[in-house]
Amino acid sequence: MRILAVVQYDGTNFAGWQVQPNERTVEEEIEKVISRIFDTPVQIYGSGRTDAGVHALGQTFHFDAPKEVEDLNRLRYSFNALLPSDIHIVSLEVVKDNFHARFDVASKTYIYALSTGEYDVFNRHYATQFLRKLDVKAMKEAAELFIGKHCFKNFTSKEKDKNDFVRTIFDFHIDNVSNTIIFTISGTGFMKYMVRMIVGTLIEVGLNKLTIDDIKELLDSHIRTITPYKAPPEGLFLLGVEYAEGEKA
Amino acid sequence: MRILAVVQYDGTNFAGWQVQPNERTVEEEIEKVISRIFDTPVQIYGSGRTDAGVHALGQTFHFDAPKEVEDLNRLRYSFNALLPSDIHIVSLEVVKDNFHARFDVASKTYIYALSTGEYDVFNRHYATQFLRKLDVKAMKEAAELFIGKHCFKNFTSKEKDKNDFVRTIFDFHIDNVSNTIIFTISGTGFMKYMVRMIVGTLIEVGLNKLTIDDIKELLDSHIRTITPYKAPPEGLFLLGVEYAEGEKA
Repeated sequence: MRILAVVQYDGTNFAGWQVQPNERTVEEEIEKVISRIFDTPVQIYGSGRTDAGVHALGQTFHFDAPKEVEDLNRLRYSFNALLPSDIHIVSLEVVKDNFHARFDVASKTYIYALSTGEYDVFNRHYATQFLRKLDVKAMKEAAELFIGKHCFKNFTSKEKDKNDFVRTIFDFHIDNVSNTIIFTISGTGFMKYMVRMIVGTLIEVGLNKLTIDDIKELLDSHIRTITPYKAPPEGLFLLGVEYAEGEKA
Repeated sequence: MRILAVVQYDGTNFAGWQVQPNERTVEEEIEKVISRIFDTPVQIYGSGRTDAGVHALGQTFHFDAPKEVEDLNRLRYSFNALLPSDIHIVSLEVVKDNFHARFDVASKTYIYALSTGEYDVFNRHYATQFLRKLDVKAMKEAAELFIGKHCFKNFTSKEKDKNDFVRTIFDFHIDNVSNTIIFTISGTGFMKYMVRMIVGTLIEVGLNKLTIDDIKELLDSHIRTITPYKAPPEGLFLLGVEYAEGEKA
């Protein structure tokens, strides 16, 4: 019995999603609780990783329940009673036996919050506090360049031995909500640091340090001419993960 | 040169306002910074204390600058550069030499946030998560009883050797903002636990465990017939402190 979960977490006190020795991670906290509930080790499979300090409003993972679950609401209740206060299961649903939370992703949506108003102690972990004037019009114009199918080799960490850097961005828009600039980006998938590097690059555009032509040079190029600035993790939220109709059930 | 400051703080990681041995307190953190700026010990005088876990959007304090300050904006900038990330000075202004941040208070306003919707990890330190159905209409009716001049002996801690329990509540209203009940209360002053006990009592009314008559019995009575429930600190914010015109300058 395969179950898909939607989970919310405050990334502030986590070293990210993925299990790492001697670090507090979201994946490990969830696996501990679910293994305790079923009284046997249970592995979970996330839709992908999030970095240290990055939040999730709608991360997903699947797992195979070692025994029949009759009442999903009750299971969710037990889950939330045992989980630490910075992780919360939003929903659980039974999915097909061959569904995979990572491989079946149709699209993911991230938001990035950049506060340009007065410093706010209550928002310090949930928005990047950037108290400089930004040319939002130029940023919006530059954001449009990212939409579509592009090679994002210049917008991810260099460490990985990867060869597929092509991703499709379905939508990318920038809104101004009372002194906070909200970036909303959806796409087929996002590599390590990709959203933070895209946002960081747009901040440089907003500061008039990079031009539209600089962005054009960075995108779809295998030569890294400019190292994109990586925006801090606290402004980033994984908003949701979408699956194609028919994949789940 | 006496200076009045308005300060915002996230109370989550503080043992309250007042200096206490071996505890992290807001007062101590501010005094450390201001003493460092002026290179001599400087004491500050708050408008009153807040308890552990209680937040402030507009707490006030005054201090005497050991030397002339020419640029208040620059002082505020130095302050905020040195303060920890959970304290932020909102404003500074020069006041009369005999102004006192505590004794000259005309009124204080607190808000209390009670979330009755789905548990929200991002709000866990900034609203009390109370996932039970409440009769808000009954709570609003009961709240009106508190307005005016009353003896609040039953709405403060018992420990203190006090004899003046009379306070005037200028305004008290309850709003429903998307699954959050916001209590806003203004008055001449609030004793230890007073707002939390008033809110706690209204929660009991909302659960239909206390009636309007029970509240009438608790208010203005020197006999404690019912021990009011004390609402948790994380929902409480000191919104602002007001001074009479002419007191400051």
